[in-house]
Amino acid sequence: MSGGTEVRGDQAAAGPPHPFFGSRWVDAPAHVRELSPDAGLPAGFRAAGVACGIKPSGNPDVGLLVCDAPGVGGVSSAARFADTAAPAAPVMLSRERCTLSALRAILANSGCANAATGKRGMEDAAKTQGAAAIALGIEPSEVLLGSTGGISDYLPVENVLRGILDASRQLSQPGDTSFQQAIQTTDAFEKRANLAVSLPSGEVRLSAQCKGAGMISPRFATMFCFVETDAQLAPETAELLLSVCLKRSFDRCSVDGQLSTNDTAALICSGASGVAIAAESEDELRFGEALDALMRQLAILMVADGEGAGRIARVVVRGGEDARLEIAARAIANSPLVKAALHGADPNWGRIVQALGGALGGGGLGGGHLPLDLYIEGIQVCSAGAAIEYDQNALLEAVQGKEIEYDVILPGDGAETEVFFSDLSHEYVTINADYTT
Amino acid sequence: MSGGTEVRGDQAAAGPPHPFFGSRWVDAPAHVRELSPDAGLPAGFRAAGVACGIKPSGNPDVGLLVCDAPGVGGVSSAARFADTAAPAAPVMLSRERCTLSALRAILANSGCANAATGKRGMEDAAKTQGAAAIALGIEPSEVLLGSTGGISDYLPVENVLRGILDASRQLSQPGDTSFQQAIQTTDAFEKRANLAVSLPSGEVRLSAQCKGAGMISPRFATMFCFVETDAQLAPETAELLLSVCLKRSFDRCSVDGQLSTNDTAALICSGASGVAIAAESEDELRFGEALDALMRQLAILMVADGEGAGRIARVVVRGGEDARLEIAARAIANSPLVKAALHGADPNWGRIVQALGGALGGGGLGGGHLPLDLYIEGIQVCSAGAAIEYDQNALLEAVQGKEIEYDVILPGDGAETEVFFSDLSHEYVTINADYTT
Repeated sequence: MSGGTEVRGDQAAAGPPHPFFGSRWVDAPAHVRELSPDAGLPAGFRAAGVACGIKPSGNPDVGLLVCDAPGVGGVSSAARFADTAAPAAPVMLSRERCTLSALRAILANSGCANAATGKRGMEDAAKTQGAAAIALGIEPSEVLLGSTGGISDYLPVENVLRGILDASRQLSQPGDTSFQQAIQTTDAFEKRANLAVSLPSGEVRLSAQCKGAGMISPRFATMFCFVETDAQLAPETAELLLSVCLKRSFDRCSVDGQLSTNDTAALICSGASGVAIAAESEDELRFGEALDALMRQLAILMVADGEGAGRIARVVVRGGEDARLEIAARAIANSPLVKAALHGADPNWGRIVQALGGALGGGGLGGGHLPLDLYIEGIQVCSAGAAIEYDQNALLEAVQGKEIEYDVILPGDGAETEVFFSDLSHEYVTINADYTT
Repeated sequence: MSGGTEVRGDQAAAGPPHPFFGSRWVDAPAHVRELSPDAGLPAGFRAAGVACGIKPSGNPDVGLLVCDAPGVGGVSSAARFADTAAPAAPVMLSRERCTLSALRAILANSGCANAATGKRGMEDAAKTQGAAAIALGIEPSEVLLGSTGGISDYLPVENVLRGILDASRQLSQPGDTSFQQAIQTTDAFEKRANLAVSLPSGEVRLSAQCKGAGMISPRFATMFCFVETDAQLAPETAELLLSVCLKRSFDRCSVDGQLSTNDTAALICSGASGVAIAAESEDELRFGEALDALMRQLAILMVADGEGAGRIARVVVRGGEDARLEIAARAIANSPLVKAALHGADPNWGRIVQALGGALGGGGLGGGHLPLDLYIEGIQVCSAGAAIEYDQNALLEAVQGKEIEYDVILPGDGAETEVFFSDLSHEYVTINADYTT
């Protein structure tokens, strides 16, 4: 009954990158201060991760996070899920039974996705949700579920129940470190951060734990991204900010164009700082900027940790029609030929023209000549669809870096989009082909 | 000004597979007889391939094929091109200036795609078309152009003109062998065939030369596929048969989901056999069956020769809506995770569920549980969306073969589609990443 794995393997991941804000594509706002990775969760939160034996390696595989000391205003939250026709049981159960605007806990496991498991999978997920609620003294509808690992494997419920009990006894404010370890699969390094954010009304905290390396092509959320803050937000504000920031972060990423069955993103606000963020206030603006930078950097880290990734890229497409630009940007980001060239530090831009042409189809732009302009790392190589003279040595040097930028200009004005993507390497094949189940 | 290659490299390809009809997915009709690969072209045709120095290797790179001894009814033909928004110059010129129903010659080169070359590319293509017409004593509008090789490279016109002159002096009926060599790029073996077809009205011949290994994801035609017959067909019949057979062959293939800028398919009928094929006759039916088997086997060979391919698969999707099934089948065929599992002989069917779910999206089928049935090599692994018990050893053994079949059953009735695809291997990455331009 094994056979499918959402993402394979299990490895001891390296710690989080420090400094966290390392990409040239993210500007950390001046009012955001990066804290030590060991700074712990925002006020009101505790977490723990334990090993319950789902992973054969014995590595942590069940994580529990709870807001059990909320501020006087109570908790608020928002959550989003993979837009797949084949959602996993924890996704379906969370959508159906959770009060997504008032979540107080997250129960997440790695090593098993509980996907393609039908009615039994739903029953298994419900049992673990109920057990977590009992262990934490809250309602099942307050417990968000997340599972990642082998698709088509049934959840080893007894193990998870034992893990919930163990984790509930080990909850602590610096427990985000063990919680992070419990949600990882093929991640090569930890993708998490602890930030302090200065607002006009006072300082608040933001923490996030994120996992994902393969099967990455979000619609609006991908993989796991759990964000906690001690700010007090109305549920509508939490929903708005999470949605907007997802659109500018995880929605702009592709490792392999493969949407998962289990992707889950959530923002939980304890309000324990006493700092309330009013809608349409300067506080909201600044908090939103911080959340945006946090999630954008996490998303880029996720791409950089794409299975086998050695080099990442951003493609920016400008032109006249949003829908066309989106198709164009995705086609480039998901082209195995473009990704292989990126891997080989090969300025093979004919493949970008080809990927664009194939995706936009012959009906587009008169079906004739596609008058695109193309720049790689600022060097123009194509004007109005035709190759131009450029400094080949300069281009070859420019594509040796770790972050490569492609700028595509299509006819028309007023629209722009971007997609971050990783390369296609031998290691991607090794990870996904050579280790049979 | 180099940089892009449509398909890379150049190698001495092995000869054509013999017997030609080798796939379990093609039934060669009883009235079709396979001839020796050296049997030569049908009556009325001559061809040649020569080296003119486009390829640094010195391998043949210009091919010329002509119908210069047509039957009393004259020639007829049909041609189709890649449905790309970025067509190469030879594609645009052939569409604009050729009488596609009365083609008499094909001028094809490898080593340069003449794509992303703008106005100059069109002028270069026109020069070579004109030269071929003069060399053959026919009209430019009767010369179909085909180029394959580096995208963004300008065509070395002088070399091609020299090649045309050389080739025109070497034309011969068995010239399909050198013509085939001149159109190949990364092909590992020759994809061509010579057939005899018994019809109620007499025997006719079919020959075909095909190239393609990477950048393969046709809309209605991909790569080069040139087919010649000495049967006499009305242009409408040629158009109809080519269209129908393309839909069942090259349109059903994917190596890497990447539509090329240069794909061209053509059928040229010399009528030199004196056997006329009337519309809606038994002759047409039988000829169509032969053309169908020929093009289907060529398409499968093209997938089997996909860059780095070690194993190929067919996914058959049955259910209720044509458009949905097409999306589903393409999503599975183009999933790098499914393709990597195919490569590893890994019965990792969770990835098929994931690919389907991602492609169909959350709005589909109620957004809840996707009730699909899934069989791999006839072994059912998933029923109504949930994993079932099956013989894991039997499945593991079944996926070791060279041709693997996946059968997916979605809700609804009356529709069915299929896509042939290759695996994702280390060699694909090597071919497309490790050799920088």
